[in-house]
Amino acid sequence: MKQAPLGQRLALLTDLYQLTMAACYFDQGMNDEATFSLFIRKYPDNRGYFVAAGLAEALEFLSTLHFTEEDLAYLESTGQFRTAFLDYLKDLRFTGEVYALPEGSIFFKDEPLLEVSAPVIEAQLVETFIINAVSLQTLIASKAVRSVEAAQGRPIVDFSLRRTQGSDAGLKVARASYLAGFTGTSNVLAGKLYGIPTFGTMAHSYVTSFHEEIDSFRVFAENFPKSTTLLIDTYDNVVGAQKAAEVGKEMEARGERLSAVRLDSGDIAAISKKVRRVLDDEGLDYVKILASGGFDEFKITDVLNAGGLVDSFAVGTKMGVSADAPYFDIAYKLVKYAGHPVMKLSTGKVTLVDKKQIWRRFDDKGLMQGDTIALREEALPEGVPLLQKVMENGTPLEPQPTLEDSRDYFRRQYDQLPEPYKAFENPPEYPVRLSQKLDERETRVEEELHHRELGES
Amino acid sequence: MKQAPLGQRLALLTDLYQLTMAACYFDQGMNDEATFSLFIRKYPDNRGYFVAAGLAEALEFLSTLHFTEEDLAYLESTGQFRTAFLDYLKDLRFTGEVYALPEGSIFFKDEPLLEVSAPVIEAQLVETFIINAVSLQTLIASKAVRSVEAAQGRPIVDFSLRRTQGSDAGLKVARASYLAGFTGTSNVLAGKLYGIPTFGTMAHSYVTSFHEEIDSFRVFAENFPKSTTLLIDTYDNVVGAQKAAEVGKEMEARGERLSAVRLDSGDIAAISKKVRRVLDDEGLDYVKILASGGFDEFKITDVLNAGGLVDSFAVGTKMGVSADAPYFDIAYKLVKYAGHPVMKLSTGKVTLVDKKQIWRRFDDKGLMQGDTIALREEALPEGVPLLQKVMENGTPLEPQPTLEDSRDYFRRQYDQLPEPYKAFENPPEYPVRLSQKLDERETRVEEELHHRELGES
Repeated sequence: MKQAPLGQRLALLTDLYQLTMAACYFDQGMNDEATFSLFIRKYPDNRGYFVAAGLAEALEFLSTLHFTEEDLAYLESTGQFRTAFLDYLKDLRFTGEVYALPEGSIFFKDEPLLEVSAPVIEAQLVETFIINAVSLQTLIASKAVRSVEAAQGRPIVDFSLRRTQGSDAGLKVARASYLAGFTGTSNVLAGKLYGIPTFGTMAHSYVTSFHEEIDSFRVFAENFPKSTTLLIDTYDNVVGAQKAAEVGKEMEARGERLSAVRLDSGDIAAISKKVRRVLDDEGLDYVKILASGGFDEFKITDVLNAGGLVDSFAVGTKMGVSADAPYFDIAYKLVKYAGHPVMKLSTGKVTLVDKKQIWRRFDDKGLMQGDTIALREEALPEGVPLLQKVMENGTPLEPQPTLEDSRDYFRRQYDQLPEPYKAFENPPEYPVRLSQKLDERETRVEEELHHRELGES
Repeated sequence: MKQAPLGQRLALLTDLYQLTMAACYFDQGMNDEATFSLFIRKYPDNRGYFVAAGLAEALEFLSTLHFTEEDLAYLESTGQFRTAFLDYLKDLRFTGEVYALPEGSIFFKDEPLLEVSAPVIEAQLVETFIINAVSLQTLIASKAVRSVEAAQGRPIVDFSLRRTQGSDAGLKVARASYLAGFTGTSNVLAGKLYGIPTFGTMAHSYVTSFHEEIDSFRVFAENFPKSTTLLIDTYDNVVGAQKAAEVGKEMEARGERLSAVRLDSGDIAAISKKVRRVLDDEGLDYVKILASGGFDEFKITDVLNAGGLVDSFAVGTKMGVSADAPYFDIAYKLVKYAGHPVMKLSTGKVTLVDKKQIWRRFDDKGLMQGDTIALREEALPEGVPLLQKVMENGTPLEPQPTLEDSRDYFRRQYDQLPEPYKAFENPPEYPVRLSQKLDERETRVEEELHHRELGES
C-alpha cells in the first residue's frame, strides 16, 4: 500500500482527461497561451468570506513538475498514448506565469484567487493538483478562523490529525489552521515540516494503564514538569481534579507549577466551574483549564456563553474536515486562449472571461467596503489591486512569504473585515461587482458564442 | 511546502501526546502487553452499516515503522525528551499482533474492526496513524457503496480527485470506492499504484479552446478512436448531441464507433431523453450516455426514477469527501493492560473491555441475522467468528488479499446484508448484542473502578 508520494512524483496525481486532452493539443500543434481562473462559485451555508491558503504548495508543485521514467512507462503500458506524445511529456516543465492572492487574503465568491497563464498543455495538465491543493487549505483556513473568533483571544490548538481525511490532509490542516490564528497543533510532523508549535497532554489509555489514576499524574509531572497538563475525566472530573490538585501541591513543594488540567467530556461549562473551585481552594489559581472533545465555533460559543471557565480549547474533527461544509464548489476554468476570451454556456454556471484583477475599496476606518472584478489591463480610479504576480517563466518570484508572514498578513486582513461578515450563521453578502469593461466583454463573448455555436442571430 | 511523506518517514505523523506518554512508560519501565480496540461509537445519520477498508495500509505502516535520524534530531531539538528515551526510539520497531476484519467486511457500531496487542509503548504510538488510515478508507467505502446500490448495475467511475481533502485522500478515495464496487477512477496515479482501471473524457476548457465545438470532437475521435466520449453540454446539450452524432457517423464511415456522450449540467433526466432521441435518430443506438456533475446516491436515484436514460455515472465530490457524513466517531481504546481488562468511565462513552471476537449468525437463506460481541477466548455455540489474525510479531501474515480479492469479498458480504439495512434514509438498527461473559466482565471492571478510583462501595 503506497502513501501519497513526494512532490517530484506527483505528475500523475491528475485526471486521465488532462492527458487525453494534452495528447489532442499536441497532435494538433495547439499550444498557444491559455489563461485559467480559479474561483469559488458559491458560498456554502453560513459562510460569507473565504481565507486564501495553499498557494505555496501550488507554486512548489508547478516549479518542480515533471514526469519520471516510471510515470511514462506506466502511461505507455495503458496503450492509449502515442510515442511522440510520451517523448514530449518527458521534457515537459511548467513555464508559465501565475497571478494569485497572497496566502491569508480574505476573498469572496466569483473572485479569482489564482490565474495561470501558460501554453495550454501545461496550464491544463496542472488543473487537478492546483484545485486539490488550494481548495483544501482554503477550506480549512476558512473554517478554522471561526473557532479563533469564537474563543475571543483564548489559545486554540489543532487536535484533528486522527480524524482528518488522510495523512496529507493532517499536515495541511495543521498548517492552514495555524495560518488562520490557531496557536499550534498536536501533529508532530507538521511541527517539524512547518515549524508550528506542538502541544500534547495524555490519553485516557495512559491513565487506565496505571493501577491508580494519581500515579499516572505523578509520573507525567515528574517527566514533563514544565508542561504538565493532566487529563482528569477518565473516571470522574471532580475526583480527577482533586487528584490533580494533590499532584499540583506536590509540584509546588518541588518549586514547580502544574500547567493545566484537561476536560474531555460531559457538560464542560458546568464541570469547569466545579473544577475551577477545586483548584482555587487549593491555591492553584494559576492552573489553566483546557477543554477538548467535539469543539467548533458553535460549541466554544455555547460553553463561553454558559459561563464556562475555560482558558484554552483543543479543536479537532469538526474543524479538521470542515464538517458543516466539507468541500467548495471551486472551479479552474479556461478564460482566454490564443488571445481570445472564452467561456462555456452550460446551464447555471457562469465563468468570467479573460485575465482579471480584483480591486478593493476601504472606508475611512480602513474597513473593507466592496470589491470590483475588472479586466487585468484596467486601472480603476479607486481601491487597491489584490492579485499579485507570484510566478514568472515557471519560477516563483522572491521573496516568498514564510508561514509566519502569511499568518500575520491574515490577521491584518481579518481586522479589515467588517463584523457582520464574521457572523457564524447567515452572514450578509459582501458587495462584489464587475467593472463596466469586464461586463461588456462578458456580454460580447456570450453573444458571439450563441451566434457561432448555437446558430442564433 | 512538503507533501505528505512516504511510509518510511511517517513515524512522526502522530500526536505529540503519544510521545510524551511513551516517555513516561519508558521512564517507569512500564511496557507490558496492551490491547487496543478500534471501533465506531455511533452511526452518522442515515447509515446502518460500515464497510471495513484501509487495513493493508495500516499493516504496511506497522511493519515498516521506525524513527529516522532526522526524526530523532527534531525531537531532540524540542528540548522535551531525555537522551535515553530518544536512544530507545531509535531501535523501536512494532513487534505486536493484530486481529482485524478483512477489508470489504460489513460491520456495525461498537464492533472492533481491529485489535492491536503489543508492548504498550508500541501499541500506543501507532494510534494516530491507525485511526487516520482506517477511518478514511472505511468512511469512503461506506459512502461509495450507496452510489453503487443506487445505480442498479450501471458502471460508476470516481471523478473526485480535484475535490478530495488532499492528495493522500485522492488516492485512498479511488482505492476505497473501487473496493466498494466502483468500476474505475479518473485518478491516473491510483491507476498506477493500485492497478485500478482509469477513465477520462474531456473538459469544457478543451471544447472552448477550439474555434468550433465540432472540431474539438473530431480531433478527440481521431486521437482516441477506441474510447471516444464527447462532452456535449459546453454550449447546449441538444446542439452538442447533434454535432456528436455527426462525428459518430464520420467514425462509422471509418469503421469505428463513438463510445459515449457525457452530460454535465442541467436537468439530466429530461436532457438524456432528448439526447437519446438525437443519437437513435442517426442510428447511433449503441452510443452510451454518461452523466456527471454533483452525483451521489440521492441524485442517481432521482435521475433514474425520473426515467433518465443514463448508462453510467461519474461520481465525484459528494462521495469523495463523504459529504453528508464527513467523519466517524471512531476510537482506539485501551481494553487490557498487563493481563487486566481496563476501561474509562467518562460520561456517555462506553468501551468494551478485553480482547474480543465478533460472531455472526445467518438465516437459512444465508442472510445476516445478528452479531454477538464476545470475549476472544469464548467459543460461541452458533455463528462464525469474523476477526482474523493478520499480523504476528510485527509481520503481516500471508497470503495478504489483493485489492481485487477484497473487492470480491465485499461483493459477497454485501449480498448477505438484508435489504432493509441498505436503505439510504433511516435504516433500521442491526442487532448486535454482548455475550454473557463479556457483559459480566464489563460490569465487574466498572464496579472495581468505581470502588478504587471514586471511593464508592
